[in-house]
Amino acid sequence: METLKLQGLLDRIAAQMAAEPERGQVATYIPELAKIDPARFGIAVALASGEVLSAGDAAEAFSIQSISKVFTLAIALGRLGDQLWSRVGREPSGLAFNSILQLEQENGIPRNPFVNAGALAVTDAILQGHQPREILAELLRFIRLAADDDAIHINDAVARSEQATAHRNIALAEFMAAMGNLRNPSPLTIGTYVHQCAVEMSCRQLASAGRFLMGGKGSPRLVSPARMRRINALMMMCGHYDGSGEFAYQVGLPGKSGVGGGILAIAPNEASIAVWSPGLNHRGNSKLGTEAIEILAREMGWSVFD
Amino acid sequence: METLKLQGLLDRIAAQMAAEPERGQVATYIPELAKIDPARFGIAVALASGEVLSAGDAAEAFSIQSISKVFTLAIALGRLGDQLWSRVGREPSGLAFNSILQLEQENGIPRNPFVNAGALAVTDAILQGHQPREILAELLRFIRLAADDDAIHINDAVARSEQATAHRNIALAEFMAAMGNLRNPSPLTIGTYVHQCAVEMSCRQLASAGRFLMGGKGSPRLVSPARMRRINALMMMCGHYDGSGEFAYQVGLPGKSGVGGGILAIAPNEASIAVWSPGLNHRGNSKLGTEAIEILAREMGWSVFD
Amino acid sequence: METLKLQGLLDRIAAQMAAEPERGQVATYIPELAKIDPARFGIAVALASGEVLSAGDAAEAFSIQSISKVFTLAIALGRLGDQLWSRVGREPSGLAFNSILQLEQENGIPRNPFVNAGALAVTDAILQGHQPREILAELLRFIRLAADDDAIHINDAVARSEQATAHRNIALAEFMAAMGNLRNPSPLTIGTYVHQCAVEMSCRQLASAGRFLMGGKGSPRLVSPARMRRINALMMMCGHYDGSGEFAYQVGLPGKSGVGGGILAIAPNEASIAVWSPGLNHRGNSKLGTEAIEILAREMGWSVFD
Amino acid sequence: METLKLQGLLDRIAAQMAAEPERGQVATYIPELAKIDPARFGIAVALASGEVLSAGDAAEAFSIQSISKVFTLAIALGRLGDQLWSRVGREPSGLAFNSILQLEQENGIPRNPFVNAGALAVTDAILQGHQPREILAELLRFIRLAADDDAIHINDAVARSEQATAHRNIALAEFMAAMGNLRNPSPLTIGTYVHQCAVEMSCRQLASAGRFLMGGKGSPRLVSPARMRRINALMMMCGHYDGSGEFAYQVGLPGKSGVGGGILAIAPNEASIAVWSPGLNHRGNSKLGTEAIEILAREMGWSVFD
Repeated sequence: METLKLQGLLDRIAAQMAAEPERGQVATYIPELAKIDPARFGIAVALASGEVLSAGDAAEAFSIQSISKVFTLAIALGRLGDQLWSRVGREPSGLAFNSILQLEQENGIPRNPFVNAGALAVTDAILQGHQPREILAELLRFIRLAADDDAIHINDAVARSEQATAHRNIALAEFMAAMGNLRNPSPLTIGTYVHQCAVEMSCRQLASAGRFLMGGKGSPRLVSPARMRRINALMMMCGHYDGSGEFAYQVGLPGKSGVGGGILAIAPNEASIAVWSPGLNHRGNSKLGTEAIEILAREMGWSVFD
Repeated sequence: METLKLQGLLDRIAAQMAAEPERGQVATYIPELAKIDPARFGIAVALASGEVLSAGDAAEAFSIQSISKVFTLAIALGRLGDQLWSRVGREPSGLAFNSILQLEQENGIPRNPFVNAGALAVTDAILQGHQPREILAELLRFIRLAADDDAIHINDAVARSEQATAHRNIALAEFMAAMGNLRNPSPLTIGTYVHQCAVEMSCRQLASAGRFLMGGKGSPRLVSPARMRRINALMMMCGHYDGSGEFAYQVGLPGKSGVGGGILAIAPNEASIAVWSPGLNHRGNSKLGTEAIEILAREMGWSVFD
Repeated sequence: METLKLQGLLDRIAAQMAAEPERGQVATYIPELAKIDPARFGIAVALASGEVLSAGDAAEAFSIQSISKVFTLAIALGRLGDQLWSRVGREPSGLAFNSILQLEQENGIPRNPFVNAGALAVTDAILQGHQPREILAELLRFIRLAADDDAIHINDAVARSEQATAHRNIALAEFMAAMGNLRNPSPLTIGTYVHQCAVEMSCRQLASAGRFLMGGKGSPRLVSPARMRRINALMMMCGHYDGSGEFAYQVGLPGKSGVGGGILAIAPNEASIAVWSPGLNHRGNSKLGTEAIEILAREMGWSVFD
Repeated sequence: METLKLQGLLDRIAAQMAAEPERGQVATYIPELAKIDPARFGIAVALASGEVLSAGDAAEAFSIQSISKVFTLAIALGRLGDQLWSRVGREPSGLAFNSILQLEQENGIPRNPFVNAGALAVTDAILQGHQPREILAELLRFIRLAADDDAIHINDAVARSEQATAHRNIALAEFMAAMGNLRNPSPLTIGTYVHQCAVEMSCRQLASAGRFLMGGKGSPRLVSPARMRRINALMMMCGHYDGSGEFAYQVGLPGKSGVGGGILAIAPNEASIAVWSPGLNHRGNSKLGTEAIEILAREMGWSVFD
């Protein structure tokens, strides 16, 4: 019953978004991503029951980009525990996702694991003592286990395309190296990072993979409940760069966006939500994806502040 | 039963905090506040049932300071609605509570209603067309109604003490005036602001007054449910200045701190929590107050991410 | 002979500038100054011989504004000596003349005596223990003695006009007060400052008044030679705000500009030069005034780097 | 006679500096430079007559480091003319020599050719269409011609030592690449840059090489008089990083310092001065070198403001 109502809501949202003329701007700084059709829209919801409902282009794979930072953070906390926090902070940045300003003001310690510099520090931390391919294999294992789907893979063409234009990320990594907060040669860390960002998933796969942050019975136990709460807190505070406050205000759910146009949002104990629409707003987050999750959360009463 | 367990927990927390040797630093920049005994500790919880449980110095009045910004925000949204957002943003600041840096970079629009500049903009907005005493009377009416307690008052000595050392707030107000984001003469706005900050309440009164943000049956309906959710979102994102990420990570509840050592936190549908311990941590938030709410939220399973 | 050649050059410059269609923008933030006719242009040169040559509207009084900071600096150094440098630095700012950013980063110590914050600190330093009218009387005495002209006065209407829109300067002063770098109540310091800026002089008067920084025989000895060199160094490094590098590059002389459109420049041992054209370039310095001094210095071989 | 007096002064300065116990800190971030004996001190003056006087360790070669930026700037202006200024500004920075902050605020255009980012942009500009070894050969030709000494060379060990710790310069270069202000692969530009900085000269050689900026009869004509004036202006405004104002105030000469402890200063029409003392002050400029030039300029009356 509840499921039928939710399916109807997803269908209505997908129809509304398909008709929307203002779709934002597709990211152009990674050439491979610039080719994506802005008309695409998909949404999927994985419920505590184990069911996955979806609508629109929910079975089509897209580049998850920065959403991958949630999975690498979980792996890094699993391996390093609270030692990770000596290398990266837990506060919102108040600046753009790729800003180098705060990095200088804060002595090479990025503000949080979801700005680019912070994600590089996290990747660098789990890379230490390993080969990039080992780390990428571990990431794929984690995501495939979470999503219960062995077909999930990395798109090498996207990774190479990002690597060719990675000047700003190299600048961030070398700046951290200068401040003593990078342990591997920057090409290794950058190489691992661009491949991690090039994981491809469909909305259905991504919603499934997010269940480990949802809690409750249907949730695979990949991290402890305390860690799950804390990753959710970080997603809420920092998951949408300098649009995190807006997402919390409008949607009220922890979430993480990627420049590929995807968003993963978690309604604790209720649902893991994935949405995909390639056009971005001026903060670099999916324009229609944000609107879709806002409608969904409001209609379902899923805000954590409800 | 549940109530007995909670009372026991509050008593244990109060006893533990009374014995804590490291109590943080009492704020000294407002001379009247510098006199407060750092040994004080109080905690109170208002439940959906209407009951208010407490422990320690929970009946002793303290200066709520910036916690007042939650009430003036509710009043401002009630009067101006979304027009308020043309004058103040909704994003965390990434800087200290009284920073003037971001104000220049963002053309006189403060980042959010809880940094000092933003709170001045909110006070200025509700002051327009009114006398300071009218606004302060409205604020007291709102708080007394929320707390169901007509004894709540403003401490004039504290207000005058803050006014005498308000140079930085005057700088923020005059800077906003220069950028066209102040409508009243700055002495009027500052005068209203320091009096609003000088409201005195006990933990029991403050926990009661916070119930309108709790939702559920026992909650007085002073704002709409949608607005309640949004004020909670702002408290979570920005309520502890540049320690908001840390509070979300450790506690997982929307909250607002004041330099008087008080914190108001909301567990949606469950409880409105007030705590008071005058010593502050390096971010300017109550040291033991934060620790007390962290224990309480963890033991009760009240995190919004649970 | 030399004098005839120079007079011819000044006449050619005045004629060229009169015909110039692009004249920059007259400052509008002080309402009284916004009324000035942008067609005005004057230039005067006081030589070591004592002669004063001029062309254009060189006998018409204008508001010297920030050029006054050179005279107050000379007075402050005379009274306080190197103690002044505990309150203000000696480095270029790299930011706009009225920026508050650097003030926060550098703990309330302005970068140099010619940015607004630094000039406020200088005025505050000489005001201490005195009434504003005493300080203004001393300033007028100093300027009248330097120019050998008792007719020089302060335009009260301009001072009041600036005071009414002084929000940003008040913000700077109050911010310094918060950091412990203001000794008088800000209204006294601001009041003195806006009156000092409202001194009116013609190009002929200003060129004469600048002779004490020229050195050589014809120069009145109001400061020691060592201090004269140092004031010139400060003018070269910081006299044109964030256009100081450009002025040094194009003109090669120490100079100080004001938003009234005046510039005082010193060719050591050779000449004291005053020019006036009310339209400003995007750095806030007189557009045609800069061009005129550039031609004059080049033709006369007066660059300090020649 | 004059020469005898100057030689006596240089001897006295060398003796005084040899006895000075507070010598500043030798730069440690380039390992090869950290080995230099802080007791070294040399000074040399090349006069318009062609004579070169010296005292102390004036014949010992040291690493000129950032002083090389003066020569590459001269080459770049010779090849590109004013087009160079589309890639780098002409204003003091108000920040440390290797700051990345301003680079972000100003869209990848460094403030001036003497901060590290600006020097990288200059090197990148002359490298375009050439091999690094061609550019380094041209630089050596220019310096050898200016100094009239074919023994001047590049120390490969110093270049390699700097390259191994060049993280911050790589960050600056990659950041400029991200903003479209780097034309060559950053390893090529960085490689050229560290070799250019590794030129070794003695004080006698450096003073001789600086004569092309001195003007007058004895000066080799490597740049036009107008360009000579302008390079001097840039040295005065920006040659000592965020200590440029201090150097202008105390010394009153255009100069350029290097972290190897050398300073080149120009007294127009009078002298080209080189000094070397490896210990640096907190701004990164030679401590005793600055003091020595201050005494020399004062005693000789060489300040451009005299």
